[in-house]
Amino acid sequence: MTVGGSDWQATVAWRGEAYVGWQHQPNGLSIQAVMERAIGDFCGTGPIRVMASGRTDSGVHALAQVISFRTPEPRTHRQLVEGINQHLPDDISVLTVAPAPPGFCPRSWSRRKLYRYRILNRSARCPFRLGLTWHIRRDLDADAMHRAAQLLVGRHDFTSFRAARCGAASPVRVIESAAVSRAEDEEIQLEFVGNGFLRHQVRIMTGTLVDVGIGTRSVDSFAEVLAAADRTTAGRTAPGCGLTLVRVELSEGP
Amino acid sequence: MTVGGSDWQATVAWRGEAYVGWQHQPNGLSIQAVMERAIGDFCGTGPIRVMASGRTDSGVHALAQVISFRTPEPRTHRQLVEGINQHLPDDISVLTVAPAPPGFCPRSWSRRKLYRYRILNRSARCPFRLGLTWHIRRDLDADAMHRAAQLLVGRHDFTSFRAARCGAASPVRVIESAAVSRAEDEEIQLEFVGNGFLRHQVRIMTGTLVDVGIGTRSVDSFAEVLAAADRTTAGRTAPGCGLTLVRVELSEGP
Repeated sequence: MTVGGSDWQATVAWRGEAYVGWQHQPNGLSIQAVMERAIGDFCGTGPIRVMASGRTDSGVHALAQVISFRTPEPRTHRQLVEGINQHLPDDISVLTVAPAPPGFCPRSWSRRKLYRYRILNRSARCPFRLGLTWHIRRDLDADAMHRAAQLLVGRHDFTSFRAARCGAASPVRVIESAAVSRAEDEEIQLEFVGNGFLRHQVRIMTGTLVDVGIGTRSVDSFAEVLAAADRTTAGRTAPGCGLTLVRVELSEGP
Repeated sequence: MTVGGSDWQATVAWRGEAYVGWQHQPNGLSIQAVMERAIGDFCGTGPIRVMASGRTDSGVHALAQVISFRTPEPRTHRQLVEGINQHLPDDISVLTVAPAPPGFCPRSWSRRKLYRYRILNRSARCPFRLGLTWHIRRDLDADAMHRAAQLLVGRHDFTSFRAARCGAASPVRVIESAAVSRAEDEEIQLEFVGNGFLRHQVRIMTGTLVDVGIGTRSVDSFAEVLAAADRTTAGRTAPGCGLTLVRVELSEGP
Protein backbone atom coordinates (compact mmCIF):
# COMPACT_ATOMS: atom_id res chain seq x y z
CA MET A 1 0.00 0.00 0.00
CA THR A 2 1.04 3.57 -0.57
CA VAL A 3 0.96 5.67 2.56
CA GLY A 4 0.87 9.41 2.86
CA GLY A 5 3.58 9.52 5.48
CA SER A 6 7.20 9.21 4.53
CA ASP A 7 8.75 8.03 7.81
CA TRP A 8 9.95 4.42 7.70
CA GLN A 9 11.05 1.68 10.04
CA ALA A 10 13.19 -1.03 8.46
CA THR A 11 15.39 -4.04 9.22
CA VAL A 12 18.77 -4.55 7.60
CA ALA A 13 21.19 -7.50 7.42
CA TRP A 14 24.87 -7.32 6.52
CA ARG A 15 28.15 -9.17 6.52
CA GLY A 16 30.53 -6.85 8.30
CA GLU A 17 33.96 -7.86 7.00
CA ALA A 18 34.32 -4.91 4.64
CA TYR A 19 33.09 -2.19 7.00
CA VAL A 20 34.24 -0.18 10.03
CA GLY A 21 30.90 -0.94 11.74
CA TRP A 22 27.43 0.61 11.63
CA GLN A 23 28.30 4.19 12.45
CA HIS A 24 30.11 6.85 10.39
CA GLN A 25 33.87 6.78 11.02
CA PRO A 26 36.63 8.93 9.60
CA ASN A 27 38.88 5.92 8.93
CA GLY A 28 36.77 3.80 6.61
CA LEU A 29 33.45 2.88 5.10
CA SER A 30 30.50 2.35 7.47
CA ILE A 31 27.24 0.50 6.86
CA GLN A 32 25.45 3.74 7.73
CA ALA A 33 27.23 5.69 4.98
CA VAL A 34 26.43 3.02 2.39
CA MET A 35 22.78 2.86 3.49
CA GLU A 36 22.36 6.64 3.42
CA ARG A 37 23.79 6.86 -0.08
CA ALA A 38 21.70 3.92 -1.36
CA ILE A 39 18.43 5.36 -0.05
CA GLY A 40 19.33 8.74 -1.49
CA ASP A 41 20.25 7.20 -4.85
CA PHE A 42 16.90 5.41 -4.97
CA CYS A 43 15.04 8.63 -4.09
CA GLY A 44 17.08 10.68 -6.53
CA THR A 45 18.55 12.90 -3.83
CA GLY A 46 21.79 13.19 -1.90
CA PRO A 47 22.40 10.83 1.06
CA ILE A 48 19.36 10.49 3.33
CA ARG A 49 19.96 10.40 7.09
CA VAL A 50 19.47 6.97 8.70
CA MET A 51 19.16 6.27 12.45
CA ALA A 52 19.81 2.85 14.02
CA SER A 53 19.14 1.13 17.33
CA GLY A 54 22.83 1.44 18.16
CA ARG A 55 26.40 1.04 16.92
CA THR A 56 28.14 -2.15 15.99
CA ASP A 57 31.90 -2.73 15.95
CA SER A 58 34.12 -3.05 12.92
CA GLY A 59 33.68 -6.44 11.24
CA VAL A 60 30.54 -7.34 13.22
CA HIS A 61 27.55 -8.76 11.31
CA ALA A 62 23.81 -8.15 11.67
CA LEU A 63 20.84 -10.37 10.94
CA ALA A 64 18.29 -7.63 11.67
CA GLN A 65 19.46 -4.18 12.73
CA VAL A 66 16.51 -1.79 13.16
CA ILE A 67 16.76 1.57 11.40
CA SER A 68 14.60 4.57 10.54
CA PHE A 69 14.63 7.09 7.71
CA ARG A 70 12.40 9.58 5.92
CA THR A 71 11.76 9.71 2.20
CA PRO A 72 10.81 12.93 0.45
CA GLU A 73 7.90 11.29 -1.43
CA PRO A 74 5.40 8.55 -0.55
CA ARG A 75 6.45 5.05 -1.62
CA THR A 76 5.22 1.50 -1.15
CA HIS A 77 7.03 -1.00 1.09
CA ARG A 78 7.86 -3.19 -1.87
CA GLN A 79 9.26 -0.32 -3.90
CA LEU A 80 11.53 0.58 -1.01
CA VAL A 81 12.82 -2.96 -0.33
CA GLU A 82 13.56 -3.70 -3.97
CA GLY A 83 14.66 -0.21 -4.94
CA ILE A 84 17.08 0.33 -2.06
CA ASN A 85 18.55 -3.16 -2.45
CA GLN A 86 19.32 -2.37 -6.08
CA HIS A 87 21.58 0.43 -4.85
CA LEU A 88 23.27 -1.62 -2.10
CA PRO A 89 26.28 -3.93 -2.44
CA ASP A 90 25.74 -7.70 -2.10
CA ASP A 91 26.89 -7.80 1.53
CA ILE A 92 24.10 -5.48 2.76
CA SER A 93 20.38 -6.14 2.33
CA VAL A 94 17.20 -4.39 3.42
CA LEU A 95 14.88 -7.15 4.68
CA THR A 96 11.68 -5.28 5.57
CA VAL A 97 10.28 -1.77 5.42
CA ALA A 98 7.13 -0.55 7.16
CA PRO A 99 5.64 2.84 8.02
CA ALA A 100 7.21 4.12 11.24
CA PRO A 101 4.91 4.78 14.19
CA PRO A 102 4.69 8.45 15.25
CA GLY A 103 7.84 9.62 16.98
CA PHE A 104 9.74 6.44 16.21
CA CYS A 105 13.41 6.48 17.30
CA PRO A 106 15.27 3.16 16.96
CA ARG A 107 17.78 4.00 19.69
CA SER A 108 15.41 5.10 22.45
CA TRP A 109 12.74 2.54 21.52
CA SER A 110 15.23 -0.34 21.62
CA ARG A 111 14.39 -2.40 24.68
CA ARG A 112 16.39 -5.58 24.28
CA LYS A 113 19.13 -6.89 21.98
CA LEU A 114 20.36 -10.39 21.27
CA TYR A 115 24.00 -10.81 20.30
CA ARG A 116 25.46 -14.16 19.25
CA TYR A 117 29.16 -14.98 19.22
CA ARG A 118 30.17 -18.03 17.13
CA ILE A 119 33.36 -20.03 17.74
CA LEU A 120 34.50 -22.82 15.40
CA ASN A 121 36.13 -25.24 17.81
CA ARG A 122 37.95 -27.94 15.89
CA SER A 123 41.20 -28.53 14.08
CA ALA A 124 40.07 -27.97 10.48
CA ARG A 125 38.79 -24.60 9.36
CA CYS A 126 35.43 -24.38 7.55
CA PRO A 127 35.11 -22.64 4.16
CA PHE A 128 31.44 -21.84 4.89
CA ARG A 129 32.09 -20.13 8.22
CA LEU A 130 35.13 -18.12 7.21
CA GLY A 131 34.66 -14.54 8.42
CA LEU A 132 31.65 -15.56 10.52
CA THR A 133 33.39 -17.40 13.37
CA TRP A 134 36.45 -17.19 15.59
CA HIS A 135 38.48 -20.32 14.88
CA ILE A 136 39.94 -21.85 18.07
CA ARG A 137 41.63 -25.24 17.68
CA ARG A 138 42.11 -26.05 21.38
CA ASP A 139 39.19 -27.94 22.86
CA LEU A 140 36.90 -25.64 24.85
CA ASP A 141 34.80 -26.67 27.86
CA ALA A 142 31.45 -25.14 26.91
CA ASP A 143 29.85 -26.20 30.21
CA ALA A 144 32.44 -24.31 32.26
CA MET A 145 31.99 -21.29 29.99
CA HIS A 146 28.24 -21.46 30.54
CA ARG A 147 28.63 -21.60 34.32
CA ALA A 148 30.94 -18.58 34.28
CA ALA A 149 28.59 -16.69 31.95
CA GLN A 150 25.79 -16.95 34.52
CA LEU A 151 27.82 -14.61 36.75
CA LEU A 152 27.27 -11.87 34.17
CA VAL A 153 23.48 -12.04 34.40
CA GLY A 154 21.89 -9.15 36.28
CA ARG A 155 22.68 -5.49 36.83
CA HIS A 156 26.44 -4.96 37.12
CA ASP A 157 29.24 -2.49 36.72
CA PHE A 158 30.88 -3.88 33.55
CA THR A 159 34.02 -1.70 33.70
CA SER A 160 36.21 -4.83 33.41
CA PHE A 161 34.53 -5.67 30.13
CA ARG A 162 34.52 -2.39 28.30
CA ALA A 163 37.02 -0.89 25.90
CA ALA A 164 39.40 1.77 27.19
CA ARG A 165 37.89 4.09 24.55
CA CYS A 166 34.28 3.43 25.61
CA GLY A 167 32.52 6.77 25.89
CA ALA A 168 29.39 5.67 27.83
CA ALA A 169 28.62 7.82 30.87
CA SER A 170 27.84 4.82 33.07
CA PRO A 171 29.48 1.36 33.06
CA VAL A 172 26.33 -0.20 34.54
CA ARG A 173 24.26 -2.43 32.27
CA VAL A 174 21.70 -5.21 32.71
CA ILE A 175 22.26 -8.61 31.12
CA GLU A 176 19.00 -10.57 31.09
CA SER A 177 20.45 -13.88 29.98
CA ALA A 178 23.74 -15.44 28.92
CA ALA A 179 24.06 -18.90 27.42
CA VAL A 180 27.00 -20.90 26.08
CA SER A 181 26.24 -24.09 24.20
CA ARG A 182 27.88 -26.48 21.78
CA ALA A 183 25.92 -26.38 18.53
CA GLU A 184 26.24 -28.86 15.68
CA ASP A 185 29.32 -29.07 13.49
CA GLU A 186 31.75 -28.40 16.32
CA GLU A 187 30.59 -24.85 16.91
CA ILE A 188 30.25 -23.08 20.26
CA GLN A 189 27.70 -20.29 20.44
CA LEU A 190 27.51 -17.61 23.11
CA GLU A 191 24.26 -15.65 23.32
CA PHE A 192 23.78 -12.50 25.37
CA VAL A 193 20.49 -10.66 25.84
CA GLY A 194 20.46 -7.22 27.41
CA ASN A 195 19.05 -3.74 27.21
CA GLY A 196 22.30 -2.38 25.84
CA PHE A 197 26.01 -3.14 25.76
CA LEU A 198 29.16 -1.11 26.26
CA ARG A 199 31.82 -0.72 23.61
CA HIS A 200 33.49 -4.12 22.98
CA GLN A 201 31.58 -5.57 25.96
CA VAL A 202 30.35 -8.73 24.25
CA ARG A 203 33.74 -9.33 22.66
CA ILE A 204 35.69 -8.88 25.94
CA MET A 205 33.21 -11.08 27.85
CA THR A 206 33.68 -13.70 25.11
CA GLY A 207 37.47 -13.46 25.16
CA THR A 208 37.50 -13.89 28.93
CA LEU A 209 35.03 -16.81 28.81
CA VAL A 210 37.31 -18.49 26.28
CA ASP A 211 40.06 -18.44 28.95
CA VAL A 212 37.64 -20.37 31.16
CA GLY A 213 36.90 -22.77 28.30
CA ILE A 214 40.60 -23.44 27.76
CA GLY A 215 41.13 -23.82 31.52
CA THR A 216 43.63 -21.00 32.07
CA ARG A 217 41.04 -19.16 34.17
CA SER A 218 38.65 -20.73 36.72
CA VAL A 219 34.98 -19.91 37.14
CA ASP A 220 35.85 -18.42 40.55
CA SER A 221 38.52 -16.15 39.12
CA PHE A 222 36.03 -15.08 36.45
CA ALA A 223 33.81 -13.76 39.24
CA GLU A 224 36.77 -11.77 40.54
CA VAL A 225 37.22 -10.12 37.14
CA LEU A 226 33.69 -8.77 37.22
CA ALA A 227 34.10 -7.55 40.80
CA ALA A 228 37.45 -5.87 40.09
CA ALA A 229 35.96 -3.24 37.74
CA ASP A 230 39.34 -3.15 35.99
CA ARG A 231 39.77 -3.89 32.29
CA THR A 232 43.30 -5.22 32.80
CA THR A 233 41.96 -8.18 34.81
CA ALA A 234 39.83 -9.47 31.90
CA GLY A 235 40.94 -11.41 28.85
CA ARG A 236 41.53 -10.41 25.27
CA THR A 237 38.91 -8.83 23.00
CA ALA A 238 37.50 -11.57 20.77
CA PRO A 239 37.68 -10.79 17.02
CA GLY A 240 34.73 -8.83 15.62
CA CYS A 241 34.10 -11.33 12.83
CA GLY A 242 32.57 -13.89 15.23
CA LEU A 243 29.90 -11.50 16.49
CA THR A 244 26.39 -10.99 15.08
CA LEU A 245 23.59 -8.66 16.17
CA VAL A 246 20.75 -11.16 15.88
CA ARG A 247 17.67 -9.26 16.98
CA VAL A 248 16.49 -5.92 18.35
CA GLU A 249 13.25 -5.85 20.31
CA LEU A 250 11.37 -2.57 20.45
CA SER A 251 9.12 -1.09 23.09
CA GLU A 252 5.85 0.55 22.15
CA GLY A 253 7.37 3.98 22.57
CA PRO A 254 10.44 5.82 23.90
CA MET B 1 49.25 -42.47 15.50
CA THR B 2 51.92 -43.01 12.86
CA VAL B 3 51.13 -45.86 10.52
CA GLY B 4 53.47 -47.75 8.24
CA GLY B 5 51.16 -47.47 5.26
CA SER B 6 50.92 -44.32 3.23
CA ASP B 7 47.49 -44.69 1.58
CA TRP B 8 44.91 -42.26 2.90
CA GLN B 9 41.17 -41.72 2.87
CA ALA B 10 40.05 -38.16 3.54
CA THR B 11 37.05 -35.83 3.47
CA VAL B 12 37.21 -32.35 2.00
CA ALA B 13 34.87 -29.33 2.11
CA TRP B 14 34.94 -26.38 -0.26
CA ARG B 15 33.06 -23.32 -1.49
CA GLY B 16 32.95 -23.77 -5.24
CA GLU B 17 32.53 -20.22 -6.56
CA ALA B 18 36.14 -19.83 -7.67
CA TYR B 19 36.57 -23.24 -9.32
CA VAL B 20 35.58 -25.12 -12.48
CA GLY B 21 34.49 -28.09 -10.33
CA TRP B 22 36.27 -31.03 -8.74
CA GLN B 23 37.95 -32.49 -11.77
CA HIS B 24 40.87 -31.18 -13.84
CA GLN B 25 39.68 -28.97 -16.71
CA PRO B 26 41.64 -27.17 -19.41
CA ASN B 27 39.65 -23.95 -18.95
CA GLY B 28 40.23 -23.09 -15.31
CA LEU B 29 41.31 -24.04 -11.84
CA SER B 30 39.82 -27.23 -10.33
CA ILE B 31 39.59 -28.29 -6.69
CA GLN B 32 41.52 -31.43 -7.69
CA ALA B 33 44.46 -29.42 -9.05
CA VAL B 34 44.62 -27.26 -5.90
CA MET B 35 44.42 -30.36 -3.65
CA GLU B 36 47.13 -32.23 -5.57
CA ARG B 37 49.49 -29.29 -5.37
CA ALA B 38 48.78 -28.67 -1.65
CA ILE B 39 49.44 -32.29 -0.67
CA GLY B 40 52.60 -32.28 -2.79
CA ASP B 41 53.76 -29.01 -1.23
CA PHE B 42 53.24 -30.44 2.25
CA CYS B 43 55.16 -33.60 1.33
CA GLY B 44 57.91 -31.64 -0.40
CA THR B 45 57.24 -33.22 -3.79
CA GLY B 46 55.46 -32.27 -6.99
CA PRO B 47 51.65 -32.60 -7.16
CA ILE B 48 50.37 -35.88 -5.67
CA ARG B 49 47.54 -37.66 -7.49
CA VAL B 50 44.16 -37.47 -5.73
CA MET B 51 41.09 -39.60 -6.54
CA ALA B 52 37.52 -38.62 -5.58
CA SER B 53 34.12 -40.30 -5.36
CA GLY B 54 33.07 -38.42 -8.49
CA ARG B 55 33.01 -35.09 -10.30
CA THR B 56 31.17 -31.97 -9.28
CA ASP B 57 30.10 -29.13 -11.58
CA SER B 58 31.60 -25.69 -11.79
CA GLY B 59 30.55 -23.54 -8.83
CA VAL B 60 29.13 -26.46 -6.84
CA HIS B 61 30.06 -26.75 -3.15
CA ALA B 62 30.93 -29.77 -1.01
CA LEU B 63 30.49 -30.41 2.71
CA ALA B 64 32.32 -33.75 2.60
CA GLN B 65 33.69 -35.07 -0.67
CA VAL B 66 35.58 -38.36 -0.18
CA ILE B 67 39.07 -38.60 -1.66
CA SER B 68 42.13 -40.85 -1.56
CA PHE B 69 45.84 -40.22 -2.01
CA ARG B 70 49.22 -41.75 -1.20
CA THR B 71 52.07 -40.02 0.61
CA PRO B 72 55.68 -41.05 0.02
CA GLU B 73 56.42 -41.20 3.78
CA PRO B 74 54.43 -42.24 6.85
CA ARG B 75 52.58 -39.38 8.58
CA THR B 76 50.07 -38.96 11.39
CA HIS B 77 46.44 -37.99 10.72
CA ARG B 78 46.87 -34.72 12.56
CA GLN B 79 50.03 -33.82 10.66
CA LEU B 80 48.14 -34.36 7.41
CA VAL B 81 45.01 -32.37 8.33
CA GLU B 82 46.95 -29.39 9.63
CA GLY B 83 49.82 -29.57 7.14
CA ILE B 84 47.68 -29.86 4.02
CA ASN B 85 45.30 -27.13 5.20
CA GLN B 86 48.26 -24.78 5.58
CA HIS B 87 48.87 -25.18 1.85
CA LEU B 88 45.22 -24.78 0.82
CA PRO B 89 43.32 -21.53 0.17
CA ASP B 90 40.62 -20.50 2.67
CA ASP B 91 37.77 -21.82 0.50
CA ILE B 92 39.00 -25.44 0.64
CA SER B 93 39.55 -27.44 3.84
CA VAL B 94 40.56 -31.01 4.62
CA LEU B 95 38.23 -32.14 7.42
CA THR B 96 39.46 -35.65 8.25
CA VAL B 97 42.25 -38.02 7.21
CA ALA B 98 42.41 -41.73 8.05
CA PRO B 99 44.40 -44.72 6.78
CA ALA B 100 42.70 -46.10 3.66
CA PRO B 101 41.49 -49.70 3.78
CA PRO B 102 43.27 -52.07 1.36
CA GLY B 103 42.24 -51.49 -2.24
CA PHE B 104 40.29 -48.32 -1.41
CA CYS B 105 38.88 -46.49 -4.44
CA PRO B 106 36.50 -43.58 -3.67
CA ARG B 107 34.67 -43.85 -6.99
CA SER B 108 33.91 -47.58 -7.02
CA TRP B 109 33.33 -47.77 -3.26
CA SER B 110 30.83 -44.88 -3.36
CA ARG B 111 27.40 -46.39 -2.74
CA ARG B 112 25.16 -43.41 -2.12
CA LYS B 113 25.37 -39.63 -2.39
CA LEU B 114 23.24 -36.86 -0.91
CA TYR B 115 22.96 -33.63 -2.87
CA ARG B 116 21.17 -30.56 -1.51
CA TYR B 117 19.93 -27.68 -3.64
CA ARG B 118 19.13 -24.44 -1.76
CA ILE B 119 16.74 -21.77 -3.06
CA LEU B 120 16.30 -18.41 -1.30
CA ASN B 121 12.62 -17.69 -1.95
CA ARG B 122 11.80 -14.13 -0.88
CA SER B 123 12.08 -10.60 -2.15
CA ALA B 124 15.22 -9.49 -0.30
CA ARG B 125 18.56 -11.15 -0.95
CA CYS B 126 20.61 -12.47 1.99
CA PRO B 127 24.25 -11.42 2.49
CA PHE B 128 24.96 -14.70 4.33
CA ARG B 129 23.66 -16.96 1.57
CA LEU B 130 25.17 -15.15 -1.37
CA GLY B 131 26.85 -17.72 -3.63
CA LEU B 132 25.22 -20.58 -1.70
CA THR B 133 21.63 -20.29 -2.94
CA TRP B 134 19.63 -19.62 -6.09
CA HIS B 135 17.63 -16.45 -5.39
CA ILE B 136 14.06 -16.69 -6.75
CA ARG B 137 11.70 -13.86 -5.78
CA ARG B 138 8.44 -15.38 -7.08
CA ASP B 139 6.65 -17.43 -4.45
CA LEU B 140 7.25 -21.16 -4.97
CA ASP B 141 4.80 -23.93 -4.03
CA ALA B 142 7.14 -26.32 -2.20
CA ASP B 143 4.39 -28.91 -1.70
CA ALA B 144 3.74 -29.17 -5.46
CA MET B 145 7.50 -29.43 -6.05
CA HIS B 146 7.68 -32.24 -3.50
CA ARG B 147 4.85 -34.16 -5.17
CA ALA B 148 6.50 -33.85 -8.57
CA ALA B 149 9.88 -34.86 -7.14
CA GLN B 150 8.41 -38.20 -5.99
CA LEU B 151 8.04 -39.15 -9.67
CA LEU B 152 11.85 -39.16 -9.91
CA VAL B 153 12.27 -41.81 -7.21
CA GLY B 154 13.20 -45.25 -8.52
CA ARG B 155 15.16 -46.62 -11.46
CA HIS B 156 14.61 -44.45 -14.54
CA ASP B 157 16.07 -43.35 -17.85
CA PHE B 158 17.05 -39.77 -16.96
CA THR B 159 17.83 -38.66 -20.52
CA SER B 160 15.50 -35.64 -20.11
CA PHE B 161 17.56 -34.48 -17.15
CA ARG B 162 21.11 -34.82 -18.40
CA ALA B 163 23.36 -32.33 -20.13
CA ALA B 164 23.84 -32.63 -23.88
CA ARG B 165 27.56 -33.10 -23.20
CA CYS B 166 27.02 -35.88 -20.63
CA GLY B 167 29.42 -38.70 -21.45
CA ALA B 168 27.88 -41.47 -19.35
CA ALA B 169 27.35 -44.76 -21.24
CA SER B 170 23.88 -45.29 -19.77
CA PRO B 171 21.23 -42.68 -18.85
CA VAL B 172 19.71 -45.04 -16.28
CA ARG B 173 20.17 -44.16 -12.63
CA VAL B 174 18.46 -44.97 -9.34
CA ILE B 175 17.14 -42.18 -7.11
CA GLU B 176 16.44 -43.52 -3.63
CA SER B 177 14.71 -40.46 -2.28
CA ALA B 178 13.77 -36.92 -3.27
CA ALA B 179 12.42 -34.33 -0.86
CA VAL B 180 11.45 -30.68 -1.24
CA SER B 181 10.74 -28.71 1.91
CA ARG B 182 10.51 -25.14 3.10
CA ALA B 183 13.23 -24.59 5.68
CA GLU B 184 13.48 -21.62 8.02
CA ASP B 185 14.32 -18.13 6.81
CA GLU B 186 12.34 -18.43 3.58
CA GLU B 187 14.57 -21.09 2.09
CA ILE B 188 13.47 -24.07 -0.01
CA GLN B 189 15.72 -27.13 0.07
CA LEU B 190 15.70 -29.99 -2.42
CA GLU B 191 17.49 -33.16 -1.35
CA PHE B 192 18.28 -36.05 -3.67
CA VAL B 193 19.81 -39.37 -2.61
CA GLY B 194 21.05 -41.79 -5.24
CA ASN B 195 23.84 -44.13 -6.21
CA GLY B 196 25.13 -41.69 -8.80
CA PHE B 197 23.97 -38.78 -10.94
CA LEU B 198 24.41 -37.81 -14.59
CA ARG B 199 26.06 -34.58 -15.68
CA HIS B 200 23.89 -31.62 -14.57
CA GLN B 201 21.14 -34.06 -13.51
CA VAL B 202 20.40 -32.53 -10.11
CA ARG B 203 20.50 -29.01 -11.55
CA ILE B 204 18.13 -29.82 -14.46
CA MET B 205 15.74 -31.70 -12.14
CA THR B 206 15.79 -28.65 -9.87
CA GLY B 207 15.23 -26.18 -12.71
CA THR B 208 12.25 -28.22 -13.92
CA LEU B 209 10.82 -28.58 -10.41
CA VAL B 210 11.02 -24.79 -10.05
CA ASP B 211 8.66 -24.53 -13.05
CA VAL B 212 6.24 -26.68 -11.05
CA GLY B 213 6.75 -24.46 -8.01
CA ILE B 214 5.99 -21.32 -10.03
CA GLY B 215 2.99 -23.02 -11.63
CA THR B 216 4.05 -22.87 -15.28
CA ARG B 217 4.31 -26.66 -15.33
CA SER B 218 1.87 -29.12 -13.69
CA VAL B 219 2.82 -32.23 -11.74
CA ASP B 220 1.28 -34.30 -14.54
CA SER B 221 3.34 -32.61 -17.24
CA PHE B 222 6.42 -33.17 -15.07
CA ALA B 223 5.74 -36.89 -15.38
CA GLU B 224 5.65 -36.50 -19.16
CA VAL B 225 9.10 -34.89 -19.12
CA LEU B 226 10.62 -37.93 -17.44
CA ALA B 227 8.83 -40.29 -19.86
CA ALA B 228 9.86 -38.31 -22.94
CA ALA B 229 13.58 -39.07 -22.54
CA ASP B 230 14.26 -35.78 -24.32
CA ARG B 231 16.30 -32.96 -22.76
CA THR B 232 14.36 -30.29 -24.66
CA THR B 233 11.17 -31.14 -22.74
CA ALA B 234 12.75 -30.29 -19.35
CA GLY B 235 13.37 -26.89 -17.80
CA ARG B 236 16.47 -24.78 -17.44
CA THR B 237 19.64 -25.90 -15.65
CA ALA B 238 19.61 -24.38 -12.15
CA PRO B 239 22.75 -22.36 -11.31
CA GLY B 240 25.63 -24.38 -9.86
CA CYS B 241 26.03 -22.08 -6.84
CA GLY B 242 22.86 -23.46 -5.16
CA LEU B 243 24.11 -27.05 -5.17
CA THR B 244 26.10 -28.81 -2.45
CA LEU B 245 27.43 -32.37 -2.27
CA VAL B 246 26.47 -33.06 1.35
CA ARG B 247 27.56 -36.64 1.97
CA VAL B 248 29.09 -39.69 0.29
CA GLU B 249 28.36 -43.10 1.80
CA LEU B 250 30.86 -45.86 1.14
CA SER B 251 30.40 -49.58 0.85
CA GLU B 252 32.79 -51.97 2.58
CA GLY B 253 34.55 -52.67 -0.71
CA PRO B 254 34.32 -52.13 -4.48
